[in-house]
Amino acid sequence: MHKKIKPNLERLRRDIEALSEITDHRADGYTRISFSEEDRMARTHIRELMEKEAGLNVRIDAAANMIGYRAGQSNMPSIMIGSHLDTVPGGGRFDGIVGVVAGLELARRFKEEKIELDHPLEVVAFLAEEPSPFGISTIGSRAMSGKLNKHDLLNTTDGEGRTLFDAIRDMGGDPDHIGTAQRSGDNILINLELHIEQGPLLYKKGIEIGIVTGIAGIYRGRLEILGRMDHAGTTSMNERKDALTAAAEIILALEGICGQIEGMVGTIGTIELYPSAANVVPSKVILGMEFRCLKLDKLELALAEFKSSVDRIRLKRKLDIKADIWPSSNPVHFDQKIITQLAVACRESEIPYLELSSGAGHDASHLAEIAPTGMLFIPCKEGRSHCPEEWSEFEHINRGVEVLANTILTVDKDY
Amino acid sequence: MHKKIKPNLERLRRDIEALSEITDHRADGYTRISFSEEDRMARTHIRELMEKEAGLNVRIDAAANMIGYRAGQSNMPSIMIGSHLDTVPGGGRFDGIVGVVAGLELARRFKEEKIELDHPLEVVAFLAEEPSPFGISTIGSRAMSGKLNKHDLLNTTDGEGRTLFDAIRDMGGDPDHIGTAQRSGDNILINLELHIEQGPLLYKKGIEIGIVTGIAGIYRGRLEILGRMDHAGTTSMNERKDALTAAAEIILALEGICGQIEGMVGTIGTIELYPSAANVVPSKVILGMEFRCLKLDKLELALAEFKSSVDRIRLKRKLDIKADIWPSSNPVHFDQKIITQLAVACRESEIPYLELSSGAGHDASHLAEIAPTGMLFIPCKEGRSHCPEEWSEFEHINRGVEVLANTILTVDKDY
Repeated sequence: MHKKIKPNLERLRRDIEALSEITDHRADGYTRISFSEEDRMARTHIRELMEKEAGLNVRIDAAANMIGYRAGQSNMPSIMIGSHLDTVPGGGRFDGIVGVVAGLELARRFKEEKIELDHPLEVVAFLAEEPSPFGISTIGSRAMSGKLNKHDLLNTTDGEGRTLFDAIRDMGGDPDHIGTAQRSGDNILINLELHIEQGPLLYKKGIEIGIVTGIAGIYRGRLEILGRMDHAGTTSMNERKDALTAAAEIILALEGICGQIEGMVGTIGTIELYPSAANVVPSKVILGMEFRCLKLDKLELALAEFKSSVDRIRLKRKLDIKADIWPSSNPVHFDQKIITQLAVACRESEIPYLELSSGAGHDASHLAEIAPTGMLFIPCKEGRSHCPEEWSEFEHINRGVEVLANTILTVDKDY
Repeated sequence: MHKKIKPNLERLRRDIEALSEITDHRADGYTRISFSEEDRMARTHIRELMEKEAGLNVRIDAAANMIGYRAGQSNMPSIMIGSHLDTVPGGGRFDGIVGVVAGLELARRFKEEKIELDHPLEVVAFLAEEPSPFGISTIGSRAMSGKLNKHDLLNTTDGEGRTLFDAIRDMGGDPDHIGTAQRSGDNILINLELHIEQGPLLYKKGIEIGIVTGIAGIYRGRLEILGRMDHAGTTSMNERKDALTAAAEIILALEGICGQIEGMVGTIGTIELYPSAANVVPSKVILGMEFRCLKLDKLELALAEFKSSVDRIRLKRKLDIKADIWPSSNPVHFDQKIITQLAVACRESEIPYLELSSGAGHDASHLAEIAPTGMLFIPCKEGRSHCPEEWSEFEHINRGVEVLANTILTVDKDY
C-alpha cells in the first residue's frame, strides 16, 4: 500500500483566493469570460505556479488547452487531471477552478513527497468550458476529443465577427493544426476531474464527496405554437385559438412528465409571444425547452410522452404546433473501474461519499469518450452555482484532492 | 308614421373607398393614425362633404372633435350620431369610418328629402378613438364626457415628448378651454353610433343588424410571479420554484374560469420571463391580463375565483405571486328605450336583427355616461377587424343607415 497524501489546505485557499481577484472588476460577481484579458491573466498565474511550485513542464496544445506535464518513470499513457479557469458572467469562485487547482496541488505534493509515478501526469486547464462568446462551450475538451476541425474554427464567430480560429491562436493555440490536440486512450491512461456539484444533494445530506457515475444526456427543443390573432374583447373563449394557453398546457405537460420519471429534469427557459398586446389574443408563442437524464431509455420515454402530449394539445385546441426536438448530448457513463477505485480511496481515507449523477455537462463528458474517465463532486452551499454566492468549503476541496491523489497513486501501480 | 328613408348605397361606397385611399401608403393595410397627416386629410375630406353635400355647419370643438350641425325647428337638445375616422396601424377600412359616413349620409338624405327635424342634428367625427401615440384611446369622446382637463393634456406626451395639449391644438381644438367640449343630457337628446361588430356573431348567423345592449366592463391586471433561478440540469423537479410553470397554471386558470362564465372573456396577452436562458429555471414571470363581461356581478365573481386560484397556486408551489388587478372600465348598459326603438325600426324595415353586447369599447361607451345612447352593429367578415382584411358589405352598411335614419325620425317626434 502506497503512502497517503494529504494536500495543503492553506495553499489551496491561497490559489483560489488569488484567482478570485483576477476577474473583471467592472462586471458583477466573479467574471472571467473565456478568451478575455482576465482569462489570459489567470492562465499566466497558474502557469507560473505549475512551473515554479510544481515543477511541471507547461505547454499550450493546438486547441490552447494549457497542460502542465510531469514525466513518469516510463513512457506510458498519462494520468490526466483537469478542469477549467473561465467563468460565466457574474459567476463564482469555484466552478472549474477547484479542478485545476486540485491538479496543481497534487503535482506539488507529489514533488514535495518525492513520489515518482510510473505514468506521466498531465494537469490541464481546458480552454473555454463555459458558454463562450462563440456560442459553444467546452471548446478545449471538445477539441481534445477530436470534435473540432479547422473549418469549424474558421466558420464560428463571436458577436464582433472575430473567428474562433483567431481567438484560439491569440490564446497561444495552433488552430491550423487543431487536429494535433486530439488525444485518445493510447496516450491517456485515465482522466479525472474534481468539480463542485452545482446542485444541492451533497450540501443537503452533509456528505463531503460525490462520486459521479455519469452525466445526464440532454434533449433540446424549440416549439412554435401557431394560433390565431383575435380581439381579446370580442372573441368568445370557445372561438379562440390562443397560442399562449396552448403553450401553458405544453409547459405543464413537460413538468408533469419529468416529475414522474425518476432522475429526469425538464425546463422551458425561454418564451417569445406575439403580438404581445394586452388586448389581443396571442397568435404565436415560441418555447425553448430541454430535458435531461442519465438514462437514454428514459430520455426516449420522456420524448415520446412529450410528443404525444403535444399532439393531444394540438388536436384538442385545433391549432398548429411545430415541435423540433433534437439530442444535444448523449448521457455519459463514467468508467466503472474508476468509480470503484474512487470509492476505495474514500473509504481508505474515511471520507463519507455518495454516488450521484451530474445534470450539468463538464469537460469530463468529452474526455469520457476517448479515455477511462472519472469525476468527483464536492458540495456547494445550497447547491448554488453560476452566481457570486457560489461557495465551497476549503476543507471539502482538500478532501477531494486527497481522494484524487490517493486514487492516482493506486491507479499508477495497478492499471 | 313618418316617411321611410332609404340611403344611397353607391354614395356610401364612394365615401368609404375615398377614405381608404387617404392612408399612409408606406405602412401596411389601411393606416390612418390619430393626429397624423392622413387623419387631418380624412377630416378635411369629410368636412367638405358635410358642408357641400349635406349642408352641415361644421365646427371643431375644444377637444378637436369635428361636428357637423344641422339646425332643428326648435332649439332643443340635439340628436347626435358619430364615430371616428382614425385607424390602428395596419388596420381596416370600416372600423369607425362607417359610423361617420352613416351620419353624413343621413344628413344628406334628410336634406334631399327636405325633412326638417324638430331637434338639431349633430354628426360627429370623434378625435382619436383608437389607442393613440399618447397612450390613451377615445380622446374625443372622453373629453366630451368631461373626463379630460387641461392638466391631463399638458402631462400626457407621445414617444417624442410632444404634449397631447399641443396635438389637440394642432388638430384645431382649443385645449386651453377643453372643459367647453363637455356635453350633457341637457344638450344631447340621444346619441347613436353605427359600427362594425369586430366579432363573428352576426357574420356567422347571417344577420344584418345587431342592436347593442351594452359594452363589456374590463378588469386589467399585472401578475408578477417570483420563483427561484436554478440550474436546469442540476435541480430536481421537486426542488424547483419555477416561475414559468406557475405562470402556466395561472394562464390556464384564467381560461378555465372565463370559459365557465357565460359572456366572460379573459386574456393574457403579454408575458415577460427572466432570466430567459435555455438552461436556467425561470425565476420571474410578469403577465399582463384582462377580463371582460357585460355583467358587473360576473366580473366580480371571475375576479374572486381568479384570485383564489392564484392563492392556491402560490401555496401549492411555495413561491410568491403579486397580483395587481384593477377595474379599467365599468360595463355600459345602453338606454332601454333606444334599444326598443332600434328594434321597432328594424321590424318596420323588415330587417332581421339580433340583440348582442360588445366586448370592445367605443366612443358610445363615454357618451352613454352623459346622454341616452344606442349602438348598432353590422357584420364584418369572419369577425375580423384591426387588419387589412376587415370587410363589411355595403348592403349591410346601407341597412344600418336606414335603421338609424328611421329611428331618428321617430325619436325626433316622440321624445
